[in-house]
Amino acid sequence: MASHADFAEKLRPAPPDGATIINHERQRSDLDADQLGQYLHGKTYIERQHRILAIIKKEKLFDKSQQANLSRPDRYKLGLARGKRLRQLQDVHGWDDEDFLMAEYLVDDVQPYHLHISLFTAALREQSNDEQRAYWMPKVASWEIIGAYAQTELGHGSNVRGIETEARWDPQSQQFILHSPHLTASKWWNGTLGRTATHAVVVAQLLLPGESDDSNAKYTSHGPHPFVVQIRDTKTHLPPSSIIVGDIGPKYGYAPMDNAYMLFDQHRIPHSALLSRYSQLDARTGAYTKSKNPSSLYGQLTRGRAVIAMHARLVLARAATVAVRYLSIRRQFHDRDDPHKKGPEVSVLDYSTVQIRILPLLATTFALHYSGLAMRQLYERTRNSSVSDGDRVSDNADVATLTELHSTSAGLKSLATELAANGVETCRRAMGGHGYGGGTGLVQLNADYLSKPTVEGDNWMITQQVAQYLIKKVKERAHSLKSQALNKTEEYLKDYLYSRTREPKFRVLGDDAAIVQAFNWRMSWLVSLQNREMESQSHIFLPYSQAMLVSNFHAAISSSAVQELPTTTRTVLTDLFRLFALHTMDLEAREFQNSGAVSSDTLDAISDTVLTIMTNIRPHAVKLVDAWGLPDYLLDSALGRYDGRVYEDLFHRAHVLNPLNKTTFNPDYRNNEIVMGSGDAGQIQAKL
Amino acid sequence: MASHADFAEKLRPAPPDGATIINHERQRSDLDADQLGQYLHGKTYIERQHRILAIIKKEKLFDKSQQANLSRPDRYKLGLARGKRLRQLQDVHGWDDEDFLMAEYLVDDVQPYHLHISLFTAALREQSNDEQRAYWMPKVASWEIIGAYAQTELGHGSNVRGIETEARWDPQSQQFILHSPHLTASKWWNGTLGRTATHAVVVAQLLLPGESDDSNAKYTSHGPHPFVVQIRDTKTHLPPSSIIVGDIGPKYGYAPMDNAYMLFDQHRIPHSALLSRYSQLDARTGAYTKSKNPSSLYGQLTRGRAVIAMHARLVLARAATVAVRYLSIRRQFHDRDDPHKKGPEVSVLDYSTVQIRILPLLATTFALHYSGLAMRQLYERTRNSSVSDGDRVSDNADVATLTELHSTSAGLKSLATELAANGVETCRRAMGGHGYGGGTGLVQLNADYLSKPTVEGDNWMITQQVAQYLIKKVKERAHSLKSQALNKTEEYLKDYLYSRTREPKFRVLGDDAAIVQAFNWRMSWLVSLQNREMESQSHIFLPYSQAMLVSNFHAAISSSAVQELPTTTRTVLTDLFRLFALHTMDLEAREFQNSGAVSSDTLDAISDTVLTIMTNIRPHAVKLVDAWGLPDYLLDSALGRYDGRVYEDLFHRAHVLNPLNKTTFNPDYRNNEIVMGSGDAGQIQAKL
Repeated sequence: MASHADFAEKLRPAPPDGATIINHERQRSDLDADQLGQYLHGKTYIERQHRILAIIKKEKLFDKSQQANLSRPDRYKLGLARGKRLRQLQDVHGWDDEDFLMAEYLVDDVQPYHLHISLFTAALREQSNDEQRAYWMPKVASWEIIGAYAQTELGHGSNVRGIETEARWDPQSQQFILHSPHLTASKWWNGTLGRTATHAVVVAQLLLPGESDDSNAKYTSHGPHPFVVQIRDTKTHLPPSSIIVGDIGPKYGYAPMDNAYMLFDQHRIPHSALLSRYSQLDARTGAYTKSKNPSSLYGQLTRGRAVIAMHARLVLARAATVAVRYLSIRRQFHDRDDPHKKGPEVSVLDYSTVQIRILPLLATTFALHYSGLAMRQLYERTRNSSVSDGDRVSDNADVATLTELHSTSAGLKSLATELAANGVETCRRAMGGHGYGGGTGLVQLNADYLSKPTVEGDNWMITQQVAQYLIKKVKERAHSLKSQALNKTEEYLKDYLYSRTREPKFRVLGDDAAIVQAFNWRMSWLVSLQNREMESQSHIFLPYSQAMLVSNFHAAISSSAVQELPTTTRTVLTDLFRLFALHTMDLEAREFQNSGAVSSDTLDAISDTVLTIMTNIRPHAVKLVDAWGLPDYLLDSALGRYDGRVYEDLFHRAHVLNPLNKTTFNPDYRNNEIVMGSGDAGQIQAKL
Repeated sequence: MASHADFAEKLRPAPPDGATIINHERQRSDLDADQLGQYLHGKTYIERQHRILAIIKKEKLFDKSQQANLSRPDRYKLGLARGKRLRQLQDVHGWDDEDFLMAEYLVDDVQPYHLHISLFTAALREQSNDEQRAYWMPKVASWEIIGAYAQTELGHGSNVRGIETEARWDPQSQQFILHSPHLTASKWWNGTLGRTATHAVVVAQLLLPGESDDSNAKYTSHGPHPFVVQIRDTKTHLPPSSIIVGDIGPKYGYAPMDNAYMLFDQHRIPHSALLSRYSQLDARTGAYTKSKNPSSLYGQLTRGRAVIAMHARLVLARAATVAVRYLSIRRQFHDRDDPHKKGPEVSVLDYSTVQIRILPLLATTFALHYSGLAMRQLYERTRNSSVSDGDRVSDNADVATLTELHSTSAGLKSLATELAANGVETCRRAMGGHGYGGGTGLVQLNADYLSKPTVEGDNWMITQQVAQYLIKKVKERAHSLKSQALNKTEEYLKDYLYSRTREPKFRVLGDDAAIVQAFNWRMSWLVSLQNREMESQSHIFLPYSQAMLVSNFHAAISSSAVQELPTTTRTVLTDLFRLFALHTMDLEAREFQNSGAVSSDTLDAISDTVLTIMTNIRPHAVKLVDAWGLPDYLLDSALGRYDGRVYEDLFHRAHVLNPLNKTTFNPDYRNNEIVMGSGDAGQIQAKL
């Protein structure tokens, strides 16, 4: 590191510098970013972020400046140390769960305990009977044990029913025998399990003696069931010889996480290991009983998907923040109308070719926000109206709403993660050369976030569920046109089926409600075109989810909460709605045209309208990303700094922080020495 | 590492295993993959790959299994060691340039000497006068000096004229004074310069005394010029105090490359430093002379773009190879028509929802191949017909062809890199869970390749050049409808302008030539719609480049070379052409409809036709990727292995090769120890 003074210290960026430019950007918009931020996040969230940030920033362990230089094994070690420190801070400051999650979010590096606090805790809580809960939950809460959730296998992902791991009931010893019959039965991908966990909830085929229609089989499978299993010794942290467990190695992103493989060789566990809330095995009689399908699990799934969508909007907001701030500072080429080329070059964000890549993504952050919010509220409303014993959805629950919720949440999760993952990459590329550097603060985010469209099964698999729901609905509707629509989706389909022969050609350019109608018309048209062929079904998911985003966005900007905001804010929110909706419509124009939802002439006029809307939004772009309130510590981005000191920070990271510059190397190819004067020939090869 | 025997050793994948499946895949197609490979690559290429691979694979230093576990500084060290070894092997085996490039390609890890052998060598060769060439080229060839090319700056990328670094001529001392007036003048991104290079070609504004129309200025800028500069001491490898130079730090991919920053503080260099092939300064009189614009540079650029396109097809072929092999082995869910669910689950590649993501990309590898080849041949033809003194394009050169070549090559480069970068990611996502693991062999490729759409300026900037060329052409055509078309593009535009009032509605489903016509009609229609507004111009590039890919693909499958291939091969190549063209048309259907190129009914029928074509191609998919001949050593992929032993390899990488499994950790959060029993509390924090 160049800690000595050198001539770089006296150098400043060529004027106008970033700080001056970004001040000017903020001055020229009268949007109240703080107020918009409060409206978006709520006071509780903002207070929490502020409070936790102050604590986290003080800790050396959470300094991000060197982590990209560490080896994968060191990244795991750092993750473990950070996880410990987070938990220690929780004890010290009395953090609740939301506080802890905020701390994890700000540190922005997954920690190896993550599956303990998420899936392991949830699985034990939801699947245990009361006795098991009383036994396990205190150990889980105190981190006396560290757990993981072991479901997916080397050969089996989305199709849970196909997993191979067996839990055979041995009536003699009153034990289950866990066994992996093939290599493909190895548990795989299970986070926190590779090196960290002492316990795991293991999902295995429950094999019970007898009763098979195949006379050769002594055992019958009753399908996948959850078992809680100690996998490592409390003192030595080593597994028994009947368990093989380890970390699967480097992957896309998530360097600190120990994703696992695990095999069992006739490993015996007690009767009490079977988590028995929904399925019970009588140890003495061997009688198996199964409860009704637990609808509450759907609720959990829905809530999880709303969380993923809300997270997706922050991920995208982060990329948009970096892109908007940097591209308003970055100058490139002179204005064509400035023949003398004497003034500063043009702000890159003033080029409409750049705006069309960034501003619709900025609008998308708001679209995701309102749908995530709507989903969360819908989940809570459903839960309150339908929960009887605090755990299961009662028989009186509004099944129609629940089914719709399951379907819309799946659609939202898929589209939100895909929009965010693609959007981060679009922002990165729009930043040209520097977009490819570590100074974006998006390198790790990009790698980490690429997994999201895969989490909880491939998005393409999920979309099949959505399509199946819609096709079923449209068939029901077609058979009983006049029956009452039980939810919004049914209403849209009903409206369409009533008047399908006409082509409404909604006048979307002057009328926001017409935009919503056009999206729902096109969705209904496509759904009613489909048959049960799997290949067609994927075409339905996107129109359906886009219509949902547009509908929720429109409902939100028409709400009373928005009417209380200042005129500028309201106008900008409306512009963002129009930009999101019309830009999406432009991308999918042919379907709008062929469905008769919008006329070809109107569709042709959209791109000019979009240009005008972007011109309206442009002066507020910096204030809009400010409103998301993402702190510099989270962004960790030279390009996206709040104060605009882009070039100073890029240079500092290179010249002061980069450890490679501490060392002088020997470039002579005839000499195998690498570090000049060290005589280290062969040392680096020994690490292979 | 688990080197001891354990119970995992006796486990095999559940039947049918990957090796059995992939053998079956190869048996059921009568496509001759070797022959197709020879047709694609030529014998010379295949012999070279075979010969170099045998040498590389023997070297421990080129073992890839641990590099993802190394820290960034170690990645640089490894890169330097590998670069040295490559050059040593070149000496030992007498490799020519093509051999060396093949070795680099197979090792598949950029080495820090790369800019020495590429841009530095090219710049010195092209820009030096004869005397300078005689002095420098032997030193370059022997690696006595190691050079870099320093053009882009912290504040200046695509707009080369805007760079800030100054080279002021001092008549007194007859020296140039290199100086960085601001921080933004810092050279930035320049590969090989950060830690490795001893020399650099530095691009700086040439400032000469007097002659300014601004009476205050003592110097006039004559624009950017190249200077060759020694930047580090031959013995100590340290820069002088008037130069600050270092590595910019971690970024997306390219971990072994030392991309640089560099500043000058009144650094003096001799008169001979100005590379004087095209500009000369008389040291005694101070007289400045400039030659005609060197057209040969355009040739260089074009050749470089053809190379990028040919590389893009191999990158995409790599991702497609991994995806096709793995997805034909991977099984998921039973066939709906198999109610007993007793047989093996369905091959994932048999789902049309998966085929539609992968097979068009497989077709794209061929599309890129034929256009890359056409570009290379066109470049060579132009060069041969236009070179007079072996260096400059003569005045008699066919300027029309050259201009078209410049434009088509820019379009091809942009589209090829974008299709490849996006295609790699699509393949990755289509592989579900395992697509996110290190076993894909695509983690590093993905990160490295993401830079390509940015190299040589943002693709979006390049596309502007294409658009400007086309708009100019269509205006010329419109003014003189009958003048002779000088190249293909002019011909297409001419045809369109002649008959623009009719809507041809080409019958693309039964007639391959009609497909080509439809693409060129739609392109011409869009070009003639455009005005000079920058925002519209980006709409032209894609149709233009797509039309080029389709035209070249069609020309290739209609050629005599293809007629000599066996029927199966010819049929499959034709199916690949149709798949690429019709799938692209489907994605852009509205433009084909609105331009009148294809009727709406025909467009609606495309998706069914595409499904049929994919069904035809599916049995040959594995053989088709085999034909690209990518060796396992290059792929470094458990999922994409030639022998199909996917699960065995994934498990081996995790259980045997992953160093993290050598260590036992302490998960107790109350204890800051990380490695169990080591008492290492605080050690990892010290690395931050």
